[in-house]
Formats: sequence, structure tokens, C-alpha cells
Amino acid sequence: MSQEELFFFDTTLRDGQQTQGVQFSTDDKLTIAAALDQLGIDYIEGGWPGANPTDSAFFDVVPKMSSRLTAFGMTRRSGRSVENDEVLSAVMNAGTGVVCLVGKAHVFHVAEALGILNEQNIENIDASIAHVVAQGREAIFDAEHFFDGYKVDAGYAIECLKAALGAGARWVVLCDTNGGTLPNEVSTIVKEVVEYGIPGRCLGIHTHNDLETAVANSLAAVNAGARQVQGTLNGLGERCGNANLTSLIPTILLKEPYKTKFKTNIVPEGLQSLTRISRLLDDILNRVPVKQAPYVGASAFAHKAGLHASAIVKNPATYEHVDPHLVGNSRVILMSNQAGRSNLRRRLAEAGLNVATDDPSLGRILDLIKAREAEGYTYDIAQGSFELLARRELGRLPDFFRIDRYRVTVERREDKLNRMISLSEAVVVVEVDGQKKLSVSDSIDDVGDDRGPVNALAKALAKDLGRYSENIDDMRLVDYKVRITQGGTEAVTRVIIDSEDSQGRRWSTVGVSANIVDASFEALLDAVRWKLVHDQIAA
Amino acid sequence: MSQEELFFFDTTLRDGQQTQGVQFSTDDKLTIAAALDQLGIDYIEGGWPGANPTDSAFFDVVPKMSSRLTAFGMTRRSGRSVENDEVLSAVMNAGTGVVCLVGKAHVFHVAEALGILNEQNIENIDASIAHVVAQGREAIFDAEHFFDGYKVDAGYAIECLKAALGAGARWVVLCDTNGGTLPNEVSTIVKEVVEYGIPGRCLGIHTHNDLETAVANSLAAVNAGARQVQGTLNGLGERCGNANLTSLIPTILLKEPYKTKFKTNIVPEGLQSLTRISRLLDDILNRVPVKQAPYVGASAFAHKAGLHASAIVKNPATYEHVDPHLVGNSRVILMSNQAGRSNLRRRLAEAGLNVATDDPSLGRILDLIKAREAEGYTYDIAQGSFELLARRELGRLPDFFRIDRYRVTVERREDKLNRMISLSEAVVVVEVDGQKKLSVSDSIDDVGDDRGPVNALAKALAKDLGRYSENIDDMRLVDYKVRITQGGTEAVTRVIIDSEDSQGRRWSTVGVSANIVDASFEALLDAVRWKLVHDQIAA
Repeated sequence: MSQEELFFFDTTLRDGQQTQGVQFSTDDKLTIAAALDQLGIDYIEGGWPGANPTDSAFFDVVPKMSSRLTAFGMTRRSGRSVENDEVLSAVMNAGTGVVCLVGKAHVFHVAEALGILNEQNIENIDASIAHVVAQGREAIFDAEHFFDGYKVDAGYAIECLKAALGAGARWVVLCDTNGGTLPNEVSTIVKEVVEYGIPGRCLGIHTHNDLETAVANSLAAVNAGARQVQGTLNGLGERCGNANLTSLIPTILLKEPYKTKFKTNIVPEGLQSLTRISRLLDDILNRVPVKQAPYVGASAFAHKAGLHASAIVKNPATYEHVDPHLVGNSRVILMSNQAGRSNLRRRLAEAGLNVATDDPSLGRILDLIKAREAEGYTYDIAQGSFELLARRELGRLPDFFRIDRYRVTVERREDKLNRMISLSEAVVVVEVDGQKKLSVSDSIDDVGDDRGPVNALAKALAKDLGRYSENIDDMRLVDYKVRITQGGTEAVTRVIIDSEDSQGRRWSTVGVSANIVDASFEALLDAVRWKLVHDQIAA
Repeated sequence: MSQEELFFFDTTLRDGQQTQGVQFSTDDKLTIAAALDQLGIDYIEGGWPGANPTDSAFFDVVPKMSSRLTAFGMTRRSGRSVENDEVLSAVMNAGTGVVCLVGKAHVFHVAEALGILNEQNIENIDASIAHVVAQGREAIFDAEHFFDGYKVDAGYAIECLKAALGAGARWVVLCDTNGGTLPNEVSTIVKEVVEYGIPGRCLGIHTHNDLETAVANSLAAVNAGARQVQGTLNGLGERCGNANLTSLIPTILLKEPYKTKFKTNIVPEGLQSLTRISRLLDDILNRVPVKQAPYVGASAFAHKAGLHASAIVKNPATYEHVDPHLVGNSRVILMSNQAGRSNLRRRLAEAGLNVATDDPSLGRILDLIKAREAEGYTYDIAQGSFELLARRELGRLPDFFRIDRYRVTVERREDKLNRMISLSEAVVVVEVDGQKKLSVSDSIDDVGDDRGPVNALAKALAKDLGRYSENIDDMRLVDYKVRITQGGTEAVTRVIIDSEDSQGRRWSTVGVSANIVDASFEALLDAVRWKLVHDQIAA
């Protein structure tokens, strides 16, 4: 059976930038575009040249790539020729091979937002698309509010699409601009659009997630004949976001009937970069990656150790809808107070610790985890501390250093200019290789701000760890979470620290105490020990 | 046209607790159950009695409610009678009116995970459900891995459902346990199940979000005949989460064809509590609410003030798929504080502060909130601090006291018995009625534990506040939450403190700083000031 072509159109850099709080720099845009190109996306919509200085700058500097770079704009405004519309001219001047113009297809919006006659709108679509095509570019028409418009006046909505195709548009894209259309409605309407004579190979779908059905709406449109899917990485976008390409791409590449039916430009290596690209975007946006994210989230293939832990290990395919490695993700077997031995062994093996089935340490480790979880620790999240706990019990944790004592002071008072300032200062006494080392540090950062007692402790500890000092030079605290939890009968403070290093390793550690500084210091010490262990293994 | 009944089944407390890092306390469970009851949920699955101490404790103390409390368990294990299976007995002993038992419907899992014959599994289903019914309870059968099982051996999967119904189950629930089934497959399979003679009014649907289609899958099942929808608040759940009831409920209540076709137990006032309940759960989990969340997210009805801002204000219905007030959310027109004023006046009135519509303070307060929120503060949760901010701007906040300076020390070292101990000590200098008062306190509690620097600061402050000392005697810190958040371009620490007093008042205050002790102290001072204001009002 011959495969049909299916195209992916990414609008992270344009519609994704409509997200509240998102503003990409030109460098950000170049980094994302390069990743999308590597992934194998057909069309990359880079922005609206002329509407936004960053968008214009991006098109000036973006290098040639395999993906087709697309500039976004809108159809000619009434009363102007295409040549005299400076908004359209700015879009054309970006010089992209593809130009996507948005226009109205809903009678209400033609009258209310544009204040023109229905025929004038059709003329604007026709003239604008013809202008793009005449300049030798590929033209795409985004039909704004298409589904709502179709429900009010199907004939007019179809007429708009036909005007665009008649003028030479390669694609007409059906947009659910308000995001309120349900999958069964998308299915029915796209089928009818095809019956009206719009060929599926010229039909795109652009959905929003206001009903949490943007992915399903896109699939419904593909089922009904559409052959271009628009969306964004991580579902970025205005209000509830656009259709999430990070979910749609693996579903279409890995699941039937799509897998067999369609040919796309995404190769297996591209698909394997998906998790990395998703996290790259979060990194650029300084967001914590969503653990629950389908396919690419840290929890997407995480199994709680329940009844069937051994079955999962034996035959993962029956507990996982796809192999996590296909999207560059990995399986995680979580520790929890229901953990069984086989699960524990599996988890230990993942940390490079091979333990025999009958090793009595297994029982001791399970008991210890249970006791510590009752005190308020959690090893589901703090995998780094889990590994250290196991290593200690297995006799595989070197005694790198010992904390003798520490003292930290936080002071807040007026400075000479009568401004309130705070200052934290820490003293740490640590024993390394039999030698006592006393270090002191404040907590003032590059810009003169006081970063608090935990920061002061971390800096004092890092100052002199003897021969381990250089190992921890490239460690960085990336997240710090605190909550009050139950430890036995009393409320205690649980601190979780996420750290990373220059090799891109990332690990989580936990500390628990009634005293928040103490809990933080415990998590910090685990973070340092984990790093030392893994640097030794690597060495 | 007569309406059909549709039932909502919430499993936030059971399947939702499978989420990585989620562990509810009994109090958390009671709070969530009360909110679900108020919302109008038909079934609340409270947990698995016997499998988890918190679950058992919950069923012991949960009060009677309109929602039907449901205990979860599994079908009898082979080789035991229903009376001699202590796992099943623990479930029955919870004494709930409804019991939901999970069992296999997939030949592979019967053989692999249970290691029994297909017929034995059928017998176990039959005997277990009959046992529940014989005890006068309503029985629900959760058919695990149903969709995957159906694809492998449809006849056997149907036989399992028929065994449960034959034994008296009120419902059989089709579970997409691995979350890998697509909406069109759900649609086809549910239709076939109905054709096999399983009535839709006995059919439930339980989906997971691994393809980002859990909501669409649930709707597809309802379209095909299912009349019970299972899910969780905010889509909590293992891996990528369960079907999100926070999205499904408003779609079914507000959108056609569901709105006209179905009668549910959720009244308009319940639906209006949806946004509040969603945030309540995040608050319990110490999570930042997802802005992009459909219906209930802070960005769900946020419009960028662009070309069509006035059109949106004039005719929101054409730019919004539903009215945000129906779900207790509100419209946000970004970069326009017009929409904010009436909202602000309402919040001030709630705090007993009546302000005229044209009071210029309103604009100043809005600006201040906006600026402070950019620094990392949040006034959604910290209503106490919100009130103080407004009072200060309105000239209605007395200048009770002034903090001159403070210093807090945390020390950790060995005691005489070579045990590591920690000790915190705080000095606070405060000015009251023109007099400077210097107080010092440690942080050791009744049982000799060190409660840390914030506790020491609170005790030192409380020691001598002059004529206000007795007002704060009955104040108690009940919760303390810390998060790293974005303040301008830097990461800062946000602390939220919940306090209560002997009159049963409870209030939340916020502090933000790069220094966690400083942020905590700021929240603490707001908590004290709020108490003094309200004692004055009461006096």
C-alpha cells in the first residue's frame, strides 16, 4: 500500500509566543528553529515580520534549513492594493519561501472586527494570496474562526477557502481560534469540507486546547482527510495553548492507523530527539518541565511499585503503550513504601548497582525506606538520595567527608543609608582525609543580593572539600522545594533539592528535619555525595 | 425530550494518589472529599482500605455525604473463598455503600500477572461481585486493561464484563489502563461492547492521558453509550494522569449535545465552585496552579489586548467558547486594568473594606498588586497580605510596631553524648509606642526538638510586643509553604504562612525574598498585623 504524505507545521515561534509571559529573543528563536529542523518539521512559522522587532530580526539572520521557513501575516486590508499595504509588504520582505496569511471566514467577524462586506473580504483573500503566489512563494491561508463561522454560515466559510485555493494557495488551514469545538464536530465539519470539494491534501488543521481536546481534534481532522497538522512544542500558546506537537508527532509516527498510512519527514533519530527538544524549550523559558507530559515527561513511563512490578520488568510492552526509547525518554520504576524486591533490584540496576536476588541487603533497604518514609522522606522524587541510602547499606558508599559542625547566622538591619538589608553568613567545619577544614562564607550574589542561609552554607561547604573541591565546582542548584509534612506524629519540614552539573546530569535529593536549615543542609550534603560517587564512577 | 442520567465518578483520592510525589494525609482527603461532595460528584472513591494506613483512616472518620463513598479493592485471589481473603475483607470492613473491585479482562494479564486460568478469573469476578452484592452494597467492576484485552481476545473481555453484571454489579467500567488507546478506537470498541449486549446505562469509562486524549476518549465513550465517567481533579494520576474531570465536567454540562441530552447531579452553583476546587487541590499539593488549564486556569480566559480588545469587551461570546463565570473563573484582558476594578472592589468588600467606584486608590492598589506579583508575591492565596496591602494604600492600617533589626543563628554540633544536635536562636529588636524592646528566644519545643530559625524568630517577636502581646498569645502557625518562584529576572523564595487563633479565624500571608528566613519573617509580620487589625475591629 502506498503511503500518503502528511505535513507538520510548527508555530511555536509565532502562536506559541502569544502565551502569557512568553517573549523569545532572536537567539532563542534560532535555537528552537534549529531543533525543529533537526526533528524534521516541514514548516517552521518564525513570526510576523514587521509586527514585532524580534520576529523581523529572526528572519534576517536565520540560516537556510531543510524545514520550510514561513512568515506569518494577514490578508490585505480593505481600500489598499496589495502593493500599498505596508503590513503585507513587511511580511513579503522577510523573503521566506512560504507565506501564511490569516483571514476571516466567519460572517460575524467580517462585519464586526473588519467592518467590511462579505464580498470585500473574499476579494482581499483572493488578491493577497495571488500576490504571494505571483512572487514565487508558497501560499498558505489560515481561515480564522473557521469552525464557529461554518456553523453560522457554512456556504460563506467554504467560499473563503475556495477563494484562497482559486488564487493559488497550496494549503487552506481550518482554525478553531476560540478552541471550543469538540472532536466529533471537527470530524463532521472536515468531512463536509471535503465533500464541498476542498481536497484533503490541501487541508490543514489548527486547534487550541480550551476543551483539553486539541490533540484529539487534530487527529479527528486527519481522520477526516486533512494532511497538514499545525501545533506547537509542549502545547505552548495563548489561553490554554495550541495543539501539542510533542504529543501528536509520536502518536502519528508510532500508532496505527497513522503509522502505516502516512509518510512524514520525521526519521527515527528525529523522533528520539523529542524529549530533549521539549526540555530545551522549557530551559529557554526557564520553566520546570511538566512531569506528567505525554511521551516526554519524566513521569510518562514511571511505574509505581505495586502488585505487578515484576511483570513490568519482565514484559514492559504490556504495561507501556510505546517503548520510551523511541521518543528519547526512559522507563522509571519508582520507589515507594509498597516497593517489592524485584522492583528494588531493577531500580538499583538502573543506578549501576547489581545485587543478587537473595542478597539480605534488599530486605534491609526496603525496611529502611519504609522507616524513613514514615519520618517524612520521599524517595519517589529524590532518586539521588535513594541511591545513596542503598549504597550505604550495600557498603558501596565511600566515606568522602564528615561534617563536624556548622553555624549560620541571618541578620537584618538598617545600613548606613537607612535601608533594610539582610546578610547571611555560614561557618562549616568538615573533616576530609583526617584533616579538619574550617570555612566561612556569606551569601551575597553577583548583583549584591543576599541569597540566604542555605546558599551561605553551600558556599562555605564548597570552599574547601580538599581533593573533592574541583568535583563540585560545576554543580548548580536548579530547584529547591519545601513543604511541611508529617514525620511520625510531628510536623516536619521536607526539602528537595534538584542539582545539575556541566555534563548535563540532573539529580534530586531530600532532607527532613523540624529545622528548615538543617533539612536543607542534609539535602545539600546528599547532592554533593551523589556528585562525588558519579564522578568516581565516570573516572 | 427526556434527559438521560450521566454519572461522575471521582478517583482523585485513589488513582490520583498514584501520582509521583503525591501522598495525601487523612485531613487532605477529608478536605478534598468535602469539596467533591459540594461540587455534586456522584461517586467518591476514597482509597484502598487495608492497602494503605491513610486510606483506612479516611474511611474511619469521613462523615456521611450526598456523594456515594466508594472503597476500592480487587477481586478475590485464587484459592481463597471471598470470606477468607483478608485483602477483600479489609475493603468490605470500610463499610462503604459502594465497593469498586478491579479485576482482569485481558487474557495475557490473567496468565502472566495472576498466573491462573481464564475460567478461574471469571469465577473470581463472579464470586467477588456476588459477595459485595450479598452484603447489600452497590458493586462496581473495574475491567483493567480492557481495551488492550479486547483487541487481543474480545470474547473473553466481554465474558468478564458479563460475569460481573450477572453477579449483580451496577456498573462495569472499561479501563484504558496503559493509556494508549486512541479516541476512534474507544468509539468503535464501546459501540461493539453495547452491541454485545452490555447496556450503556451500566457502562463506565476510565481513561489515562498518555496520548493527551483522555478527555476525548471519555467523550468518545459517552458518545458510544457509556453513562459513567471516571476521572480526577486537575487530571491527577499515575504517569500522565487520569481523565481530567475539571475539563470533562464543564464540557458535559455546558456543551451540546451533552448539555441537552444529559441530567447530572451537578447544579450551577457546584459548577461555579470548580475553579476554587481546582486551586484548593493545588494548594494541598503545594503546586503552582497551571495557568493554561482549560476552564479553570488563570490564562484560560485571558485575552491579549490587541486588534480586537474592544470587540472582546463588547461581545465576549464570539471570542470565548463559554462564559468564564459559569465555572467560577474570570475574564482577563491583559494590559487593561478596567476589568480588574470591579473585581478588586468585590474582594475589598469581602475583607470589610467598602470603597467607592471612583476612589483613586483602586488604580494604585491594582498597580501595586501587579508590581508585587511580578516580584513573586501572590495575593490569590495570601488574602491576609492582600488585605494589609489594600489597607496601607487606603490609609486604614495602624502603625502597630516597627522592626528595628533581627538576628537568627542556627548551629549544629555534637552534644556531650556525641549526638548531633541543632539549636536555633533569635534576637528581635522591635519598636512599640516609641519604646525599643529587645527579645531573645531559642526554638526548642516541648519535647526538646529544635523547630528552626523561623520558630525562634516567631517566639522572640511574641515575647514582648508591649500592649499587643496578649493579642498574639492565641495565634498559631498551622501551615508553612515555600516555593522557588520567579521574581523579576531572578529566582526568589516565596513563603506562605497559614495562621489561626482561638476564635477559629484562619488567614494566609506571604513574604518574598532571595533569603528564605527573610521571606518567612515578612510573612510572619503580616500574620501578626492581620491579627492586630482584626482584634481591633472586633473590639
